[in-house]
Amino acid sequence: MVRNYSVRTDLALEERERFASDNVEIQGVVLEEDYDEEREIRTTRVEICTENGARAMGKPVGIYLTLETPDLALPDEETHLNIARKLSGHIRELIRRNTGRNEKDLSVLVAGLGNRSVTPDSLGPCVADHLNVTRHIIREYGKYAMDKEYVNLVSAIVPGVMGQTGMESTEIVRGVVDETHPDLVIAVDALAARSCRRLNRTVQIADTGINPGSGVGNHRSGLTEKTLGVPVIGIGVPTVVDAATIVNDTMENFIAALESSESLKGVGDVLKSYNPAEKYEFVKELVAPHLNGMYVTPKDVDEMIRQIGRTLAEALNMVFAGVA
Amino acid sequence: MVRNYSVRTDLALEERERFASDNVEIQGVVLEEDYDEEREIRTTRVEICTENGARAMGKPVGIYLTLETPDLALPDEETHLNIARKLSGHIRELIRRNTGRNEKDLSVLVAGLGNRSVTPDSLGPCVADHLNVTRHIIREYGKYAMDKEYVNLVSAIVPGVMGQTGMESTEIVRGVVDETHPDLVIAVDALAARSCRRLNRTVQIADTGINPGSGVGNHRSGLTEKTLGVPVIGIGVPTVVDAATIVNDTMENFIAALESSESLKGVGDVLKSYNPAEKYEFVKELVAPHLNGMYVTPKDVDEMIRQIGRTLAEALNMVFAGVA
Amino acid sequence: MVRNYSVRTDLALEERERFASDNVEIQGVVLEEDYDEEREIRTTRVEICTENGARAMGKPVGIYLTLETPDLALPDEETHLNIARKLSGHIRELIRRNTGRNEKDLSVLVAGLGNRSVTPDSLGPCVADHLNVTRHIIREYGKYAMDKEYVNLVSAIVPGVMGQTGMESTEIVRGVVDETHPDLVIAVDALAARSCRRLNRTVQIADTGINPGSGVGNHRSGLTEKTLGVPVIGIGVPTVVDAATIVNDTMENFIAALESSESLKGVGDVLKSYNPAEKYEFVKELVAPHLNGMYVTPKDVDEMIRQIGRTLAEALNMVFAGVA
Amino acid sequence: MVRNYSVRTDLALEERERFASDNVEIQGVVLEEDYDEEREIRTTRVEICTENGARAMGKPVGIYLTLETPDLALPDEETHLNIARKLSGHIRELIRRNTGRNEKDLSVLVAGLGNRSVTPDSLGPCVADHLNVTRHIIREYGKYAMDKEYVNLVSAIVPGVMGQTGMESTEIVRGVVDETHPDLVIAVDALAARSCRRLNRTVQIADTGINPGSGVGNHRSGLTEKTLGVPVIGIGVPTVVDAATIVNDTMENFIAALESSESLKGVGDVLKSYNPAEKYEFVKELVAPHLNGMYVTPKDVDEMIRQIGRTLAEALNMVFAGVA
Repeated sequence: MVRNYSVRTDLALEERERFASDNVEIQGVVLEEDYDEEREIRTTRVEICTENGARAMGKPVGIYLTLETPDLALPDEETHLNIARKLSGHIRELIRRNTGRNEKDLSVLVAGLGNRSVTPDSLGPCVADHLNVTRHIIREYGKYAMDKEYVNLVSAIVPGVMGQTGMESTEIVRGVVDETHPDLVIAVDALAARSCRRLNRTVQIADTGINPGSGVGNHRSGLTEKTLGVPVIGIGVPTVVDAATIVNDTMENFIAALESSESLKGVGDVLKSYNPAEKYEFVKELVAPHLNGMYVTPKDVDEMIRQIGRTLAEALNMVFAGVA
Repeated sequence: MVRNYSVRTDLALEERERFASDNVEIQGVVLEEDYDEEREIRTTRVEICTENGARAMGKPVGIYLTLETPDLALPDEETHLNIARKLSGHIRELIRRNTGRNEKDLSVLVAGLGNRSVTPDSLGPCVADHLNVTRHIIREYGKYAMDKEYVNLVSAIVPGVMGQTGMESTEIVRGVVDETHPDLVIAVDALAARSCRRLNRTVQIADTGINPGSGVGNHRSGLTEKTLGVPVIGIGVPTVVDAATIVNDTMENFIAALESSESLKGVGDVLKSYNPAEKYEFVKELVAPHLNGMYVTPKDVDEMIRQIGRTLAEALNMVFAGVA
Repeated sequence: MVRNYSVRTDLALEERERFASDNVEIQGVVLEEDYDEEREIRTTRVEICTENGARAMGKPVGIYLTLETPDLALPDEETHLNIARKLSGHIRELIRRNTGRNEKDLSVLVAGLGNRSVTPDSLGPCVADHLNVTRHIIREYGKYAMDKEYVNLVSAIVPGVMGQTGMESTEIVRGVVDETHPDLVIAVDALAARSCRRLNRTVQIADTGINPGSGVGNHRSGLTEKTLGVPVIGIGVPTVVDAATIVNDTMENFIAALESSESLKGVGDVLKSYNPAEKYEFVKELVAPHLNGMYVTPKDVDEMIRQIGRTLAEALNMVFAGVA
Repeated sequence: MVRNYSVRTDLALEERERFASDNVEIQGVVLEEDYDEEREIRTTRVEICTENGARAMGKPVGIYLTLETPDLALPDEETHLNIARKLSGHIRELIRRNTGRNEKDLSVLVAGLGNRSVTPDSLGPCVADHLNVTRHIIREYGKYAMDKEYVNLVSAIVPGVMGQTGMESTEIVRGVVDETHPDLVIAVDALAARSCRRLNRTVQIADTGINPGSGVGNHRSGLTEKTLGVPVIGIGVPTVVDAATIVNDTMENFIAALESSESLKGVGDVLKSYNPAEKYEFVKELVAPHLNGMYVTPKDVDEMIRQIGRTLAEALNMVFAGVA
């Protein structure tokens, strides 16, 4: 089957597209799309409803909202606020659905995952840096000190990565959750996409948290309701593509081109006699093993991370700002 | 009594000196000194043995080892290694005494306290950055992977400060301790001294951990065996002096000078008729309230923090390097 | 005379106040004040018109605009924009006056002075980080690429400090000016004030550039039209007070109090018999020499620098944004 | 000809290898190799002696010393010092040859090129951070203050990148050179290699400086004796590979495999009938245009940059330390 040797993606959207391109309808998976033409913002909602759907998609049951816009990293204040507003709506929806209440008077822990010292992996720390943290103020002075219609206890943690701490992010965040008892965790992370087209223009918000294998840093245990004991909303932005993926993709295009090429008809005929698995094996040998641990990222990733990090923080600040 | 209106210091050494200058012997407090003339390293050991001593000193029962050297921040490799070696000996002593075993095969969590964004408060994070973290490697590959006589599971956490996280450092570290069960916590922090003379030339190592009020950031709850459930060794370096302290000190000198001045004999006579508390009240009014939240620090604090942070990390790496 | 032993300040405003408090009118110095009550923004304009005035003030002939507001570091978007707008007006005025033309189609080099690694000295680099730099775009694609009514060639340099580069900031900036020929240099720097009250609530904009002795880092040669060959507008924010200044000030208050004290009348009588210089000498001996190279700064200086740096950059971006 | 459509490399070594693989001897290019088996350090010396050789290699006449070792980023103190010693020898050789004198009493400006905010491009700034800068000390206190057999005036500049400054690095460095008149410039930069195998294990030292197109940041004008007016020694470490290069290489391997494959003999026969240029065109269409501006880099690039940056700085400090 095709999926056996497919390269991993953190985006439900990309997972779904693999099937869509095969014109397969997947049982237990509902897809909805919305396009804001004026602002060029596309929102895709993938709901995995059943365990069958989860198996087919290789992702847990839950809701995956994806916002796509070419302007995600545009350094323009109005665009930035428009996108933040859209994102805050999506985050509110998932909060209400998963906590059984609205976002008012919730206590929330935001976990900024990733490695601050590696630019494309620094999105989570960057969001944490721009967050309005309030828990300590409300605990010290009471909620009326904030002069707002409602208040949220917002706290934030940047757990770092295993090479720096010797611990998994999950261990650190679980410890903090057990100690401070938030109602909800929001985990922000830089993701790996399958295609460079997605980089720095896509935000995925999922009520399934961050799952093993997600993220640039490849966490081994996930941040999910199961591991943390409270609902976890994962917010991810693809900032890298695995180097092997890119080579693999180009090879697949190449083989497809060979198979259909008029000028190289003879090549196509030969390749057609091989099944997909054989072709994959053949290609894999050519993908140099030194690509392990390598990723592809844009040269201006620093400006992108800074701009997108600020927009995600703005969206979270809108949700928790106490403005009804 | 003098101590009623004394300004706080995080250094047991300075606390002790206040009494020494009054030629008072304090019951329940044992003081020992050692001076390495060649290397200009002075080691002072203050042991607070009884609750009486603790009350007198305003610090909990325990051992406070202080290393003083003018070369602490000297950018010289040999000096750096000599100091690290001395410090590693002191750390080993306190570990053995407090865990009832030696430092071999211990699991230890190093907490780098303080604010990475404020230079004189960034010592703890700086030490964590230079630490050899091993827990994840040993857990993945076993202790024999390290090819050492013995191994320690070393992990590290930089909890940040309340304004960034909304949580007390203690809450975060306690959560991580409960989750990962180290045998011991080593907490590194930048301290406030009473005198500028101490800045960046003094290291205090105490088996009482970090107590409320210690540190540049003024933690409200301490990192101690009581709050964390495991022994805590606190390592502190004074990098700032409270601005009010400096003014206060100078005033005290000034009053003393007035009292003994030949040329200002009249002034002295008047002042002598007041008791210390009255004089303190008089001085306090003159110390502007805008000094609250202000501290004094050297202009080249960045180089000092970098150098001292590297030396402390070296000392810890020596202790836990698996070289018997 | 009083000024002989006064402690240095980078603020013309503070210099002027010393005289004002003595009810002296200074020849060749014109003072104007404006107060925006609603927004609590006070603007003071000190114009030093003559060499006599310059001698009296200890500052070169020129215009010194000072904006003071308690909200300078307030993390509120509307306040931030209001202040940036006021500042941009002041900057425009000085540009027009000094270049003989308006700010349109100028080429300008912004120099972010100071040490990025020492928080209170990092204001200049922080402003440079948030600046809209355009020179390379306009040179590559032409001014019509910007789709603005007018365009400015904006470039930026962060020269670092002598301990990092081995060179004076002036040498680096002069080299860059000689190479790239901007019409104007804007130099941004963290300043030393005389009083803690000024810290992080005052911006001084002067058409005399940055003069020797200004700045936290104590540049030895200034950035002025004389040293750079083009007009230099200096923008400074006091972020530190020299530690010796604070002690000195408190002593002066103390002596004043002693002199007027009912309860310490005798003291006052004695002190009154000394002239100011004698009193200063007496005090100086008590100000410990270890205060050399020490400064006083607020604990939350990181948040202040970040907020103010963003506001100054916003003001500069407004001036050079090409919106008429 | 093959080279017409070859992908660019900053390494003379890689350029030479392309020919070597074709078993061509290149006129005007001399190749020497040395292998230190015990330390696994390979040194290759490519000397381009004539303009003919320069044309063939696509690089200017000069000497290119390349050190290769798998241990370049190994966090081991002894290895680090061994490599630094070898490098310092190579740097000394090129200095003597290009300045006509030895490295004693030279004044040298080290330019740390690249973008501090993008991890794989931050090597140059990282080296500058660890350099012993002496120019300001010697100018202030004289050369005898250093208590060394000889002294060098070492200064350092981190010019930043065009997106931050609006200026080319060359403009900034040239301005500083014209102002401070060093005898020599040493420019350190992160390079792009053709093969992932080279990443973080190769150092190239060349007396031709940094040429247009070198470096991760793709400088448009070079730092050479011609542009700066003094000899320039370029030190580069490949930290990225252009994403298109990797795809291209794999395609070439793939085509080669197809041509020689037994099992896919038919394919090979067809492809053999195309000339290299046709094959390249065919492949290029498949290399997605979205790979423009993308690069490949290892996940742990932060640790590698930190370690290698420290080693390069050590090598430079050895050369200029005043130890004969």
